[in-house]
Parts: sequence; structure tokens; C-alpha cells
Amino acid sequence: MTTITIGIADTTFARADMAKCAISELKENASVKIERYTVPGIKDLPVACKKLIEERSCDITMAFGMPGSDPKDKICAHEASQGIIAAQLMTNTHIIEVFVHEDEAPSDREFAELAEARAREHALNVIKLMFKPATLEREAGTGQRQGYADAGPARA
Amino acid sequence: MTTITIGIADTTFARADMAKCAISELKENASVKIERYTVPGIKDLPVACKKLIEERSCDITMAFGMPGSDPKDKICAHEASQGIIAAQLMTNTHIIEVFVHEDEAPSDREFAELAEARAREHALNVIKLMFKPATLEREAGTGQRQGYADAGPARA
Amino acid sequence: MTTITIGIADTTFARADMAKCAISELKENASVKIERYTVPGIKDLPVACKKLIEERSCDITMAFGMPGSDPKDKICAHEASQGIIAAQLMTNTHIIEVFVHEDEAPSDREFAELAEARAREHALNVIKLMFKPATLEREAGTGQRQGYADAGPARA
Amino acid sequence: MTTITIGIADTTFARADMAKCAISELKENASVKIERYTVPGIKDLPVACKKLIEERSCDITMAFGMPGSDPKDKICAHEASQGIIAAQLMTNTHIIEVFVHEDEAPSDREFAELAEARAREHALNVIKLMFKPATLEREAGTGQRQGYADAGPARA
Amino acid sequence: MTTITIGIADTTFARADMAKCAISELKENASVKIERYTVPGIKDLPVACKKLIEERSCDITMAFGMPGSDPKDKICAHEASQGIIAAQLMTNTHIIEVFVHEDEAPSDREFAELAEARAREHALNVIKLMFKPATLEREAGTGQRQGYADAGPARA
Repeated sequence: MTTITIGIADTTFARADMAKCAISELKENASVKIERYTVPGIKDLPVACKKLIEERSCDITMAFGMPGSDPKDKICAHEASQGIIAAQLMTNTHIIEVFVHEDEAPSDREFAELAEARAREHALNVIKLMFKPATLEREAGTGQRQGYADAGPARA
Repeated sequence: MTTITIGIADTTFARADMAKCAISELKENASVKIERYTVPGIKDLPVACKKLIEERSCDITMAFGMPGSDPKDKICAHEASQGIIAAQLMTNTHIIEVFVHEDEAPSDREFAELAEARAREHALNVIKLMFKPATLEREAGTGQRQGYADAGPARA
Repeated sequence: MTTITIGIADTTFARADMAKCAISELKENASVKIERYTVPGIKDLPVACKKLIEERSCDITMAFGMPGSDPKDKICAHEASQGIIAAQLMTNTHIIEVFVHEDEAPSDREFAELAEARAREHALNVIKLMFKPATLEREAGTGQRQGYADAGPARA
Repeated sequence: MTTITIGIADTTFARADMAKCAISELKENASVKIERYTVPGIKDLPVACKKLIEERSCDITMAFGMPGSDPKDKICAHEASQGIIAAQLMTNTHIIEVFVHEDEAPSDREFAELAEARAREHALNVIKLMFKPATLEREAGTGQRQGYADAGPARA
Repeated sequence: MTTITIGIADTTFARADMAKCAISELKENASVKIERYTVPGIKDLPVACKKLIEERSCDITMAFGMPGSDPKDKICAHEASQGIIAAQLMTNTHIIEVFVHEDEAPSDREFAELAEARAREHALNVIKLMFKPATLEREAGTGQRQGYADAGPARA
């Protein structure tokens, strides 16, 4: 069986090393090869992910970013997300976006905890996408969340 | 006659299993093959649909998502929709988007009912697009709605 | 001389049969072949137009839609418009977008009148683009409107 | 030396014949061939420009538009601008966008003057891009404006 | 070893010659070839960068722009950023966007200082991307900023 290669793109702008948490979670759960690519900011992530896929043979990629709370930063995040979706369509390859917005947590400590939890839960989503698609299908429509408590299914 | 294959892409984020309702409706109305692909969130849908079309030979695809009520979630839905349109243009294949916004219904029960009704009505649209285009043409400009009562044509 | 084929894409969501008005206007003014394609909603129009161009050999296409008045509907219209522009760039073929927003008219009757007038005037634009480009050039910068009274040129 | 061909795309919607002013300015400053293409509205400009480049061999193109003051019109202008940027990327060819917003001037007379001044100054930019790139480089970061007084460089 | 070529795209609209500062910083830190391309405005940057990459063999490009403070200018910057991301995806090449918004500083003097500092710090990012990727990886998640004091990592 060929080893799966997982691309990890992240930024020096972010205030938490989400990539490290995700890599640790990935390695605990599967035997995978990691290719890491750090860029300055969130808008550099789309091409970094595309290069990981096309030039470093990644089978799937994670993109870690931390948009600031300023309206300008929100627009940057929007542009990055559009680019990440375009990169996926150009390569037929998943890029799991893991963004934590600076204003999602009231303190540094809670922000760091949220970032780590979200990174780890999305690492598990990568494992499921690559190795356990049936698990994802069983969880379809069940209100899963990453970094927060699950919302659960709506009771009919 | 070749059997039509219908792709079904949905998410673990959503709080209702719309895909299940749609698959049931599709099977009641036509003899079709179903390919299902569950991904974590709404922004993973565009590439999932493109893979269903290009790697799993789907003739048409449905994309089920449930955007949350937060402004951030609205932007995610917008990005996903743009990606779904791009995926259609890259493949010359329809992807019927079935999104139910969390704030469209006041209670869990009504939300679940709306989600099921919209999923079933859009499943019928898929059947019409693939098997009964003349029916769609007869309904042109008649104010059809999915999950709500039809608006009907404007009386001149 | 080869007959020009004009694609007509419209929706079952719209509350007026603009396509019928446009087809009537087109046939009164030129000998053309019509290919009609009705889809459920406005976001299905971009790929429908691209299929009309690439799979049904249309030389030009019209896209009829009626965005609702809800903010969500405005975003759908924006996404559809972006897709229609992308489809044109991918095919080097005009797609004349004819959208009538639900909130452009105060009553059903006025809405239906506006929709018919706009559909007919844009049908004439299609005729000009295909057969009378010099007429369009003569009207350049003259404040033409479709469905409303012309604004006319700014008096210097 | 091969003659440069300059594409001129404009609309019947606009209330000023900016193209005429630009063509006059271009011809006063260089020996160029002009290809003009008038379309109904601003959203028809991207494909018109791409056709000027790919089907009528233009080396550079100008796109003239006049967005109305309604929010709907602002969104149309945004969509047109995105399409114009995409057309440039698909052809590796400049399209100089010359838009004058209806609400930029308080009266018809001032609007017409602004439109003419902007059209002429951008025509000079086209001349510089094609014939005098060193002049543009000398003006880098100097706060040039088109139709208004130059802002000038920020004094450090 | 082949010399790296760095593209520098900037505008005459900007009120500071950021490109000059960046070129000076680049030359102080590495032996590189510079290709400069000045265009009128921010929306001309995406195709300028793509031409630098594809027609003038740049290995990486910097794009300098100064969006005005008017809402219209903010939308221009958004469109330019989307185009810059698209150009990167089409070429698998980084374009480091260096935009300074006119309203980021209260005075001309502070604006000019901010513009120079940001240009120089992003020039160092270019050096790291091309020559020292391990340095970027060490700075991952550490809250780096360009032109402002670094935010630093969130303390867990």
C-alpha cells in the first residue's frame, strides 16, 4: 500500500502553531508522510496548497490560518477561502481549511485552546476522508463541530 | 438505456440528514444509481461534487448543506455556492444546491421538516432535469418554491 | 447564410414567463433558431447557458431570472451573475442576463409589465449584437435602459 | 514595426460617449488601429474585451462603463470588474477599466466633464503601457489620478 | 546556481514608492535579478504579475498597491486581491501582496513610514520563501506582522 502524503500549509501571521497540533494528531492516528509549507499570511495559502499537491505530491492538504478581527482581515480570509476552493477544483484534491478567527475567543488562553482543539478535530476529519469514508457518512447531518461542542442533529 | 448516476454530497456539519430524504425520493421516482460522498463542512462540497462527477461518473449531483446563522457562516455559504457554480462550469454538469439556512425556521422541528421538504422537492427537480425537461419548461416562470408554498406566477 | 441559434435559459422560480416574451420578440425581428432550457433556480443558469453554447450550438444566449427580495436572494443573484460572466469568458460567447428583482415593482401587475418590457428590449439587444453592431455603436453612451424609460445622455 | 491594435469596449447604458474621447486622445498621441465593440451593459464588457483580444487581435483593450448609483448597480460594477480581471489573466493582456460612477459628480455637466477627462487620461496610460513603460516607472508611487487632480506623493 | 528573478509590480496611483524600498532590501539580502513593471492602478496588478511570471521569467513576484479610503477603493482592492490569488493558482508561483490602505495611518509622514516598513519586511519574506523556508517554518504561528509590531504568539 502506498503511503498517503498530507500537506500542511500554515502562516507566520497566526498566533498559534496549529500545524504542530494537527501533525501530532495525524501521526497518532495513521502512518502518513507530512509535507509542511509555511508562508507569511493567509492569502499566500491557496498557492502554497496547490504547490503541495502538484509539486510535492500531497494526496490531501490542510490550510491553517488565523484571520484578525479587523474588517480588512475578514475580507482577506474571504479571499483566501475562495482561493482555497479554486485550488481544490483545479486539482480535484481536498484542502481542509482550518481558520480560527481572532474574535472567536475572549482571551489568549481560550484562543490557544480553541485553535488546538479545532486543529486536532480537523486532523481527524482528514483521516476519515482518506481512510474511513464510511464513518463520515454515518455522521452525515449530525451537527458535528470542530473546537466547539457538537450541535447535534435537529430533533424532528 | 444506460442507468443515470446521481451524486449526493453532504456534510457532517448539517443538523439534518437531507441526503437520506433525497435518496429515498429519487429511488421512488426513477431507477438510478446513487454515489454518496460525505465531507466535514459546506466548503468541502465543491470539490466533493467535482470528484463525484469526474472520478465516480455522476451525471448530475446534489449538494446538501446547512449554513449556520452567524455572519461568518453566511460567508462560508457564499464561498461554497461560488465553488459549486465553478465546478458546474468546469464539468458542464448540473449540481443542484440544497442549502437550508439555520435561521430559516424558528424551531428544531420546523427546521427538520423544512430540510426534508426541500431535499425531496429538489430531488424531484433532479428527476425532471434528467428525464422530463418538458415538465420544467411548462413550469417556467410559475414561481415554484422548494420547502415553502409555491409563490405562483405574478398576475398581470 | 447559416441560421443563428439563440439559447434561452430560464427558471421555474421566476414569477413571469419572460422567455416567452423574448422568444416572441426575437422571432418577430429575425429568422433564428431557438433552443430553450428551463432549470429550477437562478444558480442553475450559468451551467445551463454553457451547455446551450457548447452542447446545443447556440451562438448567443439569454438568461432570465427573478431574484427574490430577501438578502439571501440578492446573494444568489450575485453568484449567478458571476457564473454567467465566467461562462461567457470560457466560451467567448455573449450571455445576455435579464434579471428582474422582485422588489423593482410595487405590485404583481407592474412587476409582470416590467418583466415583459425588459425581456423584449433585451431580445432586441440580442438582435443588434448578432445582426446590427453598428446600431449599438451609434447608441453608445446614450443612456439606454431596458424596462424603464431611457436615461438619455448627460448634457455637457 | 507592426501597428498596435487597441480595443475599445463600451456600453449603450452609459450616459457619456467616453470611447469617442479616448479614441480621439489615442489617435492624437500614436499611430494605432482601433477596434470598437459596443455592448448593452457593463456586465457584457468582460467577454467583449476577451473577444476583442482573441478574435480581433487587440494588443490592449479599454473598457468603458458607467455604473448607476443604486446598490444593485454597484454590485453589477463589481461583477464586471472581476470579469475584466479574469479576462486579462486568461489572455495575458491588459484591459484598462474606465468606470465613472453616476454618483461621482453632482450634475450632468460635471459628470460629462469627469467622464471625458478620465477617458482621456486613461488613454494616455494605454499609450504609456504600450510605448513608454519607462515613463510609468518614473511615475510609480506619485499619486496619479484620472479625472481628478493628482493626489501626489505622501511627504515623508 | 541559477540566479533568482524577482518581479516587482507597482502603480502610479500609490502615494509612496514602496517598490524602491523593497528592491533596496532585496539587493541587500541576496543576489537576485529584478524585473519591474509599473501600471496605472491596483486592478492592473494581477495581469502585470502574471506577465512578469510568464513573459519575463520571474520566480516570485511582489505586488505593491495603495487602496484609497473610499468604499469604492476598498472594493477595487478586494478585486485586485482576488485576481492576484487567481494569478498565483494559474502559475503555481507566489505573488506577495503588499497593500497599504490609505486609512491605516493618520498622517502623510506615518503613512510613508508604514509603507516603507511593510515593503521592506515583505521583501524579507520573499527572501525567506526563496532561500530560507526553514526560517519561515520556525516562525509559524508566532504572530509576525509587517509594518506594525509583531503580535506574538497567544500565551496558552
